[in-house]
Amino acid sequence: MNPLDPVEFRRNGHMVIDFLADYYQNIQNYPVKSQAKPGFLLDSLPDCAPLHPESIETIINDVQRDIIPGITHWQSPNFFAYFASSGSTASFLGEMLINGFNVVGFNWESSPAATELEMIVMEWLLKLLQLPNCFSFSNGGGGVLHGTTCEAFICTLHAARENILDHIGRENAQKLVVYGSDQTHFSFQKSAKIVGINPKNIRQVSTSRSSNFQLSPRLLDEMIKKDIESGLVPMYLCVTVGTTSMAMVDPVGPLSDVSSAYNMWVHVDAAYAGTACICPEFRHFLNGVEGARSFSFNAHKWMLTNQSCCCLWVKDKSALTKSLSTNPEYLKNQASESGQVVDYKDWQIVLSRRFQALKLWMVLRSYGANGLREVIRKHVKLAKDFQLLVSADKRFEIIVPRYFSMVCFRVSPKVLGRCYDTEHASNEFNQKLLQSVNATGCVYMTHSIVGGVYFIRFVVGATLTQDRHVMMAWKLVCDQATSMLLTK
Amino acid sequence: MNPLDPVEFRRNGHMVIDFLADYYQNIQNYPVKSQAKPGFLLDSLPDCAPLHPESIETIINDVQRDIIPGITHWQSPNFFAYFASSGSTASFLGEMLINGFNVVGFNWESSPAATELEMIVMEWLLKLLQLPNCFSFSNGGGGVLHGTTCEAFICTLHAARENILDHIGRENAQKLVVYGSDQTHFSFQKSAKIVGINPKNIRQVSTSRSSNFQLSPRLLDEMIKKDIESGLVPMYLCVTVGTTSMAMVDPVGPLSDVSSAYNMWVHVDAAYAGTACICPEFRHFLNGVEGARSFSFNAHKWMLTNQSCCCLWVKDKSALTKSLSTNPEYLKNQASESGQVVDYKDWQIVLSRRFQALKLWMVLRSYGANGLREVIRKHVKLAKDFQLLVSADKRFEIIVPRYFSMVCFRVSPKVLGRCYDTEHASNEFNQKLLQSVNATGCVYMTHSIVGGVYFIRFVVGATLTQDRHVMMAWKLVCDQATSMLLTK
Repeated sequence: MNPLDPVEFRRNGHMVIDFLADYYQNIQNYPVKSQAKPGFLLDSLPDCAPLHPESIETIINDVQRDIIPGITHWQSPNFFAYFASSGSTASFLGEMLINGFNVVGFNWESSPAATELEMIVMEWLLKLLQLPNCFSFSNGGGGVLHGTTCEAFICTLHAARENILDHIGRENAQKLVVYGSDQTHFSFQKSAKIVGINPKNIRQVSTSRSSNFQLSPRLLDEMIKKDIESGLVPMYLCVTVGTTSMAMVDPVGPLSDVSSAYNMWVHVDAAYAGTACICPEFRHFLNGVEGARSFSFNAHKWMLTNQSCCCLWVKDKSALTKSLSTNPEYLKNQASESGQVVDYKDWQIVLSRRFQALKLWMVLRSYGANGLREVIRKHVKLAKDFQLLVSADKRFEIIVPRYFSMVCFRVSPKVLGRCYDTEHASNEFNQKLLQSVNATGCVYMTHSIVGGVYFIRFVVGATLTQDRHVMMAWKLVCDQATSMLLTK
Repeated sequence: MNPLDPVEFRRNGHMVIDFLADYYQNIQNYPVKSQAKPGFLLDSLPDCAPLHPESIETIINDVQRDIIPGITHWQSPNFFAYFASSGSTASFLGEMLINGFNVVGFNWESSPAATELEMIVMEWLLKLLQLPNCFSFSNGGGGVLHGTTCEAFICTLHAARENILDHIGRENAQKLVVYGSDQTHFSFQKSAKIVGINPKNIRQVSTSRSSNFQLSPRLLDEMIKKDIESGLVPMYLCVTVGTTSMAMVDPVGPLSDVSSAYNMWVHVDAAYAGTACICPEFRHFLNGVEGARSFSFNAHKWMLTNQSCCCLWVKDKSALTKSLSTNPEYLKNQASESGQVVDYKDWQIVLSRRFQALKLWMVLRSYGANGLREVIRKHVKLAKDFQLLVSADKRFEIIVPRYFSMVCFRVSPKVLGRCYDTEHASNEFNQKLLQSVNATGCVYMTHSIVGGVYFIRFVVGATLTQDRHVMMAWKLVCDQATSMLLTK
């Protein structure tokens, strides 16, 4: 038995490529959202591993029969849920190389190209995003690839905490306060809890419709002042560009100004919307980012890069390395000791790291800056088209302004008649509408509730989505709503 | 432009499969350890991303020219460094499917098969490892796939901390103490710092040659007692089965007994050696694991599974989910609310998660339990052969007993003559020996220092390694040592 026999590798690899190419060709034939019921797979697969090898043909048949009905097809052109997970051929090929080489680039020494290519693509992206030069390696900053935003939160929260505790003493750890808004992604709170921030000191500044659910610099300032008066120590602010529920945008510059006055760490989380900022017409959403100490976005959401790939930059790399560095004997080497190289293990939580830079490099080269901008603009245009259709139908209403490729909408309470005159009844109607739309299997959208209002989130971002899919999605929503309104 | 065009996907996918199959065929022609110098890639690649798309042919040529000389070939049969990163065709195919589907299985709803297949493979592995039933889903426990051991540490440390602070009050957070030995992996300390444990309260129990560098239950008990007397609160113990420097084994049962008396969380970290425990003859190293609250090993080290894949089980799943659960509106769904399903986002740090279970499932089915055992036994046999060769040469000495596939050895200070009669000089000689061996490009081994003794770690674990590679490695060490001893 040779589990890396080149002949078998070649034969089976070609087979799986054909399987996946067929999958993409037929992807529209599957229900977008899996129709599986809890336990469907647990009940049908054997309860222990086989003793003897099984053939790849058998396994691939089982993938088709058992697995595919159980997956939601995130790559379907009719996927409009959550935020997309936008794959691409270039990124897929990059993943093949990552897995083929299967190197572990924890430090420069362990595989020099893994480190240097990561530095290179992070500088390429810095330029594409027009991030200020203070985030560049050339200026004492630098970029690193994490898996997800949570990891970026944890590493920067940890760095900020260690930095402050060095000054005020560890006995004051329970006094540290972190800030976000009620629209900040929940993983920020989770990360703060993980690094040991007192849960009572995790602030959510309230947002409101009148200011498009932005985090208000004035309210933030008031809250910080109050906390200081209570003897607490403000430590960290999370600013969001493109919130999860509604893709709203906090004002980066004014918020950084407020926080910097208190010497707080400001992180800008642009997980979804960051990618759009490679287009000059969207870049203004990042104005003021030079006031932040760190910035991150997820290439795996909207930059044609497979899961998982979060890009993080810091202004002062020593803030990260001071708090995350380790130097065990078994990893000591001349290159690290020379100080000439970057050891990414000291920029992240984990030791082992995949050669993630390869896939980003393949994406950036295969599509070029212009190609990536074209994709973003097409998606935003499709969202605009959808918005126009919703707006033109008086039964519907748009919930918040659309900045990017997400439209938040609902059937208006006004058209629901007397028995639907409360927000509660309207929420119920729209929830049923979404369920009936998704139950067709033809599209998949998800929801949120903000300020008591239930709405449908329509996010364009799947790589294969074209005009006709958006039109079809609207027609489906329209038809379901019509039929529900007739029978109510 | 269609970045997921099936025709292009098929064509380019086949091209990369052939590229990688050729790579495996020729892998022995490359120097195992990259000979690159710091800056080699930074100096040679363009400093910004291309504006226009480039062809896959161009990019693949650049991979061959620029990247391959910069990577250390972890898949080479002559790779004996660190712990191996053992890839396989089955795992590679699994990664292809993971990336082809590119689903995000944060909860059951988002892609049911991703969750259920993970539960299934974790139960399969539980049985293969003969883990006690208290770690099974059927008994209130369960398994989850993390990226690396650090994540397993952070999640279990966080769960343990929250559990204790619920009882003693958050104001006592700085009193919590965690325990390991001076041989525990450094990522345990790093993780403890990240979750906010006072660095002064991270204990390293000293180990010694006389007890094969085991963590002593007696010394641990003394240290805990002392800490309690000082008003501190013991919280967590990390027990290691297969330490990084020497692959030594802490006594799981006795250590669990000591810690349980103080109601501490015990975690068993078998990152490398865990895989061996699927063979009955190695399973005794886990005896007593029923006394631990969690157990982890890395399938990506020695179970033919590509990076990264850490398998974690807990005895009480609610300990994890209580501390890590979140319930934002935009992820609410009927399946979660029914309580019938597992939502893995509440078992880990991050939200986004790849469909990792697919590759483990492919590995377990493609090779079967017997196939995997055969690989382990072959590697252990090769390490034994190497050990016999070292032992038969009086100039060398074995540093510690060999339990698994790692041999720790050095040229004995005795044969180095007068000017080498100190440990220091011996360390220098062995360091130079290792450098000269690695400089040939024919093999790659790494080192460690324990108790002041520098030694070479020879780890068999690369998938392609055969008898002749081990023989060649020994001949190389022998020849280099001979030549160095002659010229000294």
